[in-house]
Amino acid sequence: MAQKIEPRIFKGARDFLPPQMVRRNYVINIIKTVFEKYGFEPLETPTIELWETLSGKYGEEGDRLTYRFTDRGDREVGLRYDLTVPLSRVVAMYPQIPKPFKRYQIQPVWRADKPQKGRFREFYQCDVDIVGSASMLADAEIIAIIYEILQILRFEEFTIRINSRKVLSGMVEVSGAGMEKEFDIYRAIDKLDKIGFEGVAEELQKLAIPESAVGKLLDILKIEGTPAQRLDTAAGLLAGSAAGQQGVAELITLFQYLSRYEIPGSCFAFDICLARGLDYYTGPIYETVVEKPRIGSITGGGRYDNLIGLFSGQSQPATGSSVGLERIITVMEELEMFPPQLNTSTGVLVTVFNEDLLPYSIQIAGKLRQAGINTDLYTGASKLRGQFGLANDKNIPLVAVAGPDEQAQGSVNVKNMASGEQQTVPLDALVEYIRSILSGD
Amino acid sequence: MAQKIEPRIFKGARDFLPPQMVRRNYVINIIKTVFEKYGFEPLETPTIELWETLSGKYGEEGDRLTYRFTDRGDREVGLRYDLTVPLSRVVAMYPQIPKPFKRYQIQPVWRADKPQKGRFREFYQCDVDIVGSASMLADAEIIAIIYEILQILRFEEFTIRINSRKVLSGMVEVSGAGMEKEFDIYRAIDKLDKIGFEGVAEELQKLAIPESAVGKLLDILKIEGTPAQRLDTAAGLLAGSAAGQQGVAELITLFQYLSRYEIPGSCFAFDICLARGLDYYTGPIYETVVEKPRIGSITGGGRYDNLIGLFSGQSQPATGSSVGLERIITVMEELEMFPPQLNTSTGVLVTVFNEDLLPYSIQIAGKLRQAGINTDLYTGASKLRGQFGLANDKNIPLVAVAGPDEQAQGSVNVKNMASGEQQTVPLDALVEYIRSILSGD
Repeated sequence: MAQKIEPRIFKGARDFLPPQMVRRNYVINIIKTVFEKYGFEPLETPTIELWETLSGKYGEEGDRLTYRFTDRGDREVGLRYDLTVPLSRVVAMYPQIPKPFKRYQIQPVWRADKPQKGRFREFYQCDVDIVGSASMLADAEIIAIIYEILQILRFEEFTIRINSRKVLSGMVEVSGAGMEKEFDIYRAIDKLDKIGFEGVAEELQKLAIPESAVGKLLDILKIEGTPAQRLDTAAGLLAGSAAGQQGVAELITLFQYLSRYEIPGSCFAFDICLARGLDYYTGPIYETVVEKPRIGSITGGGRYDNLIGLFSGQSQPATGSSVGLERIITVMEELEMFPPQLNTSTGVLVTVFNEDLLPYSIQIAGKLRQAGINTDLYTGASKLRGQFGLANDKNIPLVAVAGPDEQAQGSVNVKNMASGEQQTVPLDALVEYIRSILSGD
Repeated sequence: MAQKIEPRIFKGARDFLPPQMVRRNYVINIIKTVFEKYGFEPLETPTIELWETLSGKYGEEGDRLTYRFTDRGDREVGLRYDLTVPLSRVVAMYPQIPKPFKRYQIQPVWRADKPQKGRFREFYQCDVDIVGSASMLADAEIIAIIYEILQILRFEEFTIRINSRKVLSGMVEVSGAGMEKEFDIYRAIDKLDKIGFEGVAEELQKLAIPESAVGKLLDILKIEGTPAQRLDTAAGLLAGSAAGQQGVAELITLFQYLSRYEIPGSCFAFDICLARGLDYYTGPIYETVVEKPRIGSITGGGRYDNLIGLFSGQSQPATGSSVGLERIITVMEELEMFPPQLNTSTGVLVTVFNEDLLPYSIQIAGKLRQAGINTDLYTGASKLRGQFGLANDKNIPLVAVAGPDEQAQGSVNVKNMASGEQQTVPLDALVEYIRSILSGD
């Protein structure tokens, strides 16, 4: 035996053992199914991108946090940092892709960040975007998808907050704060949830914005009433800005569309305080917050009509959202929202009584597998007691015992591990019996 | 608009656009379904592993071909090179994992290799392994899985070649070639398909093996008859080697088990010329070759009872196989084995006649989506003609037109894009009508 190597994992990375994988796959499958139901199609891009593709797209911090290295051919490369820049590259490289291009993409990304609770160096992103449509219908499709995914995952209290960069831009314009400070102002507003209005006021003052402009910005951010009333008030306050007016008009259209999708009005709301951190948004922006636990947003996105042109040289309207897979899983674990039993993909363990009876066990496993029932056949060296222990440790709900008596009778003894109940079933009725227990009938 | 960046992809990496993704997902889903049907559970490990984990595990070539870099914390790291070493690390790190551990893993790996036709720097591996079982039943489970996957994918002419490292070891022992040259001899035999018996003889001579030993090795490699006869002959020839005898006995047991799985005898065969390239195999080895096209093996694996101990310090019997996802897809593309229509995940495009009729189109799309039919709703700015063009370009089989007449009648006009047939269907009957066309009834 070679010298033992201490097994260690790269910090900030994770192994997903079967129980976690089963829950992750459950969430991913629901998300995929909804994406495809709305006519979105899958895309995958490489892990390694040329550095020239990634460089400068995520700001200074992004450049710093990208895993970068030089390959053997002396090419500067980096690991995928998000899924939006690769989408932009793909749209530019393959002009033959039919538009509007409705694509989804679920792949890991990497950040050379300090690992913390809930923050990893390798994590999945899950994006859904429409490239080539300037219509608010495209934004409505994305929001409808988010609503449906959260419904199916049984999220109960969530709000999809909706605003528009054009509305924010109009606000900056009418406040007199100066358009050159637009993005700094958005970043300050983006901190509102954490630092409150007073904190935002301080941040704005740091930007050397005239006191009167700070006051006007805060007045607008603090408008009150129902979401519809607030949109109405905003329309009045932004009347002096063409961008602001257009932003309000687009949001009105968007909300009309959303009402057609039969999304309950309680699940989405105009929120003038929503700013989002990234510079590239140009129109509606949207994110989902859950009331409990306080974890920040679980989805986030918006319209970015100029980013695609960075590669194609030709502007393409685009809108889309990230679905925060990792946060959704965290919330679902914390609130115990996963269906019970979702910690194994296996339904039955078929035991092996002894070598002589092995053919009978193989026959039983074959029958179950042929019927599409996920069936483990015991391959270890333990006696029956140890085999039950294995089923227990692996959370397998049913154990099928095939001893000499059962073989003689052409039957199988099935033990329900949760209830402890045992039942001897003729081989012919086994599939039906096991199906009925596994489906919870 | 910022300066245009020429969109380029890292050489040896690939973008998978929707039509390819749909076919890849089709294959992956079948493989996953079979793995889970046999009671195997999913595992995922990180892309970035500590260099100490990867280093030296794949021989000199592997060290050279691993993408390696130093992270911001000065840690030496590398990108996942295969799925077997991460499995070994996982088994050692989490001793609580119940054994036998039946896991599957489908993730990309990276090789800093020269890209060639069919050889990529980033590609998927797809592994299925049992850790903690020394029984030939474990090997039989793996081989049964391979058979079932290839059956479902409609591979017709394939052979699962089976041999044992113990048989080969016995052969080296009785030949008098010297056990210290064991692995060099296996690597020479591994080239048989490419260089023939004469070529192998030359390779063996290069190893400075006595002429008589080369002759004996070739005599054994050339044994004739049916697979069963050959195993019988081998048993006789290897009678002088304890390892050889054990190898033959294990294969006899394995073949007995396989016959219980109802795998046709024509699909697997004892083949004493099968050697496999890797050093770590210790028992049965197996690979699948297809007759047409000549592409090498599409699956490969075997028993490796000592590798796991490298991390755990404690030997664990293990056996498993890679399913060559990329090669399988290549073969299926070349032989046109994919079901027709498998180039989109979308079933219907719902057109939008004009802004006034948009609510009706949203209603129709909602109805179809609610029924689980993958439905694109047109979000672009083209007239009806352009919308039909989009459906055509995206390979969407059906187009649902909702013009003023249809709205007035509460109906939808459905065009079958393949046959050109058009039919007006009442809204109430739409789901059923579209389901019947999509399911090919």
